Amino acid sequence: MFIYEIQKLIRKKEIKPSEVLEECIKNIEANAKLGAFITLTLDSAVKQAKKQDEMLQTADPEKLPPLFGIPIALKDLIFTKGIRTTGGSLFWKDFIPHEDAFIVKKLRKAGAIFIGKTNMHEIALGVTNNNPHFGPCLNPHDSSRISGGSSGGSAVAVASGMCLAAIGTDTGGSIRIPSALCGVVGFKPTYGRVSLRGIMPLAWHLDHAGPITKCVEDARIVLKVIEGYDSKDPFSIRMRNSKIDGKKTTKIKVAKGVGDFVGKADERILKLVDEFSKELEKLDMKIEMENTDWLKDVAAANGLMTQVEAAAFHRNRLEEKPEWFSEDVRERLIQGKSASGVEYALARHTQSIAKHRFNEFFKAYDLLLLPTVPVIAPPLHGEGAVELSRKLTRFTASFDITGLPAITIPYGKIEGLPVGVQLVAASGRDAFLLKISRIIEQVLANQ
Amino acid sequence: MFIYEIQKLIRKKEIKPSEVLEECIKNIEANAKLGAFITLTLDSAVKQAKKQDEMLQTADPEKLPPLFGIPIALKDLIFTKGIRTTGGSLFWKDFIPHEDAFIVKKLRKAGAIFIGKTNMHEIALGVTNNNPHFGPCLNPHDSSRISGGSSGGSAVAVASGMCLAAIGTDTGGSIRIPSALCGVVGFKPTYGRVSLRGIMPLAWHLDHAGPITKCVEDARIVLKVIEGYDSKDPFSIRMRNSKIDGKKTTKIKVAKGVGDFVGKADERILKLVDEFSKELEKLDMKIEMENTDWLKDVAAANGLMTQVEAAAFHRNRLEEKPEWFSEDVRERLIQGKSASGVEYALARHTQSIAKHRFNEFFKAYDLLLLPTVPVIAPPLHGEGAVELSRKLTRFTASFDITGLPAITIPYGKIEGLPVGVQLVAASGRDAFLLKISRIIEQVLANQ
Repeated sequence: MFIYEIQKLIRKKEIKPSEVLEECIKNIEANAKLGAFITLTLDSAVKQAKKQDEMLQTADPEKLPPLFGIPIALKDLIFTKGIRTTGGSLFWKDFIPHEDAFIVKKLRKAGAIFIGKTNMHEIALGVTNNNPHFGPCLNPHDSSRISGGSSGGSAVAVASGMCLAAIGTDTGGSIRIPSALCGVVGFKPTYGRVSLRGIMPLAWHLDHAGPITKCVEDARIVLKVIEGYDSKDPFSIRMRNSKIDGKKTTKIKVAKGVGDFVGKADERILKLVDEFSKELEKLDMKIEMENTDWLKDVAAANGLMTQVEAAAFHRNRLEEKPEWFSEDVRERLIQGKSASGVEYALARHTQSIAKHRFNEFFKAYDLLLLPTVPVIAPPLHGEGAVELSRKLTRFTASFDITGLPAITIPYGKIEGLPVGVQLVAASGRDAFLLKISRIIEQVLANQ
Repeated sequence: MFIYEIQKLIRKKEIKPSEVLEECIKNIEANAKLGAFITLTLDSAVKQAKKQDEMLQTADPEKLPPLFGIPIALKDLIFTKGIRTTGGSLFWKDFIPHEDAFIVKKLRKAGAIFIGKTNMHEIALGVTNNNPHFGPCLNPHDSSRISGGSSGGSAVAVASGMCLAAIGTDTGGSIRIPSALCGVVGFKPTYGRVSLRGIMPLAWHLDHAGPITKCVEDARIVLKVIEGYDSKDPFSIRMRNSKIDGKKTTKIKVAKGVGDFVGKADERILKLVDEFSKELEKLDMKIEMENTDWLKDVAAANGLMTQVEAAAFHRNRLEEKPEWFSEDVRERLIQGKSASGVEYALARHTQSIAKHRFNEFFKAYDLLLLPTVPVIAPPLHGEGAVELSRKLTRFTASFDITGLPAITIPYGKIEGLPVGVQLVAASGRDAFLLKISRIIEQVLANQ
């Protein structure tokens, strides 16, 4: 089920919101062992769907809001009025917000039906999503493997048809990594495009919220709902309208990342990226090889900034109840606490230089193509969480610190596990990136 | 001598560049004890002036570049090709750059005659300008007192008629503080408006370059020459044309800072600021009191960021030859080195919040009025440099960390020493700020 299809069916009254929801609930029940949710809100969802069924009988289909009847899940660090919001952490295991996050208000107004709060890596600081307090979140393609994280539950819920879209957050890759490992689309918008008010921070200057969906068009639909300047969020940025670029695909120049930095990925993934770039060539896009070894330091700076800002935000909790954090999270917070101001300042300097370098880079290119994750979904009981965090964020983190829009699109499988390819565009060109990704997706679907 | 007057006289051929320069040289010689310069370049200046004299004979006056024949001084951290650039430090006491800074190229192209490199606080980290390596820079109104810094030589050179304009840099107030203490105009543009390429950094994310002049109109003329996006400076920001706001003074709303934070200034200075605000009321501007106590934390965050980023930039020098730094500078660098990443991250968080708060603030107001410096020029042998740094940057530092355009205008005297009042505008409204300041200045001059 795609949002853009269900939208039409509902408006033609060929399907009712409660029927869509019913299908999702079936999938939730059938996949309960994947641990996608921390809290389900099916009772209120069912009520809302029934109410929408009634509304639909008399409503003018043209006037229905865009997400009318669409079941949506929210990562459990997004504040929901009256509904527990844990951040995947013991500190908030009983925390019930008094107000919705800014984007939750927007989604509600757009008619979305909230089915629950998704599982996540504790406080969003990690990528395994093996949450010791609320259970691990498992890969729907092989439940002995991780979903990826930190927005793992959101990706699993979409991949398993438990909802039509989910909201995740991305500070080093936390939308794109689980999306790639679970075989769905994950979109991280330009920094500041989507308000963070009412979302628990991981790292103020790196956090992004964005959609996880079954297809690119659905990501565009959800982004349209949640984007927009928020004068009460200090990190919100007023952007020009996300005008869609008129450029034809025949004029598009794509830089394909090559060199040692990219070369360390699983060879089979690199082969898939090669194949994907050939698909782009078939669309008459121009592909050029670009050495991206300089991104190694950029990704490392993102990691340092994340740990330091997380240590800053959690400083009192780390001081007073360090034992409430699980081992891997505590280890990283302590690393963040131990970093010097000079180290953090140098990371910010790297950030400034990288942003500038990308400004110049995207004068020469329209898109950058990279793998999303260097490996297929690792086993749940394998490498440590801290080590995996560094490994899995390798290709994603550079676009959090530089704030560039980036998308992962599922492309091919290895050992039955999905692989994602990543496309990145210039700052603010979210609509362009989505438009081109959609064209590519359609071509691939028709093969 | 004002630039805007000399411009006209030269174009009418009523005065020659060499005559303007001669007057400046007289003042340089008469005030040598003030220690305004680290390096004089009078030989090449005289040659250039003579060449310009000849050019003037046949030139079309309308086609002369804006600073043709205008003697200008440069703070000694701005790279000048073939001319020593010390940064006021032993580390560069013999350093001769191979290339001009970006703004030096612009000034050169505009016809400016460079008379020398001005004295500064060592590595720009301080406000006394009592430089142990190149001698103290003294106040032209009372040579037992400091000029203020770190761009002290630039302010002294302008105040004493040694040149018609000088370029300074401002990281916590280093343009505005010496300008206020020496009785001249100092303008700090919006962050990113003036390229920093080829200028030694003090703190990457706080540094600004800008003009020090005898009057506001001259600051505008110099800014027009040096401003502009520089694709090779990672900190340069492309700004909309500095369009001058059409708003009439009768529609202007000025917030006058009040509360404990401002109240700690010398009472006589506060009285002058009150008088100044009455002048604005005479121009039909609307004055409202605004508590600015929240700026205390903002200024403190600027101080921390400065020390940490300076410690980052000078980390190898501090490691290898700490004894080459003078005591006060070394003390502050060590403080910067000792700060934790969490402290620096929290300062960056304060910066983000303050920028946002000012965005909202400047929806309600056009200008913010504050004293520039809380005291008159302190004695050379008085309080310590570290203590004075905190004290003198009290009202200026908040506008470095937030990147807002800010100007100091001389207004009144206390004990024969000049006082500056400070006006601040919204980000990017440099031209508006200069326009209103010019109107005020003209009204004051005609009284």
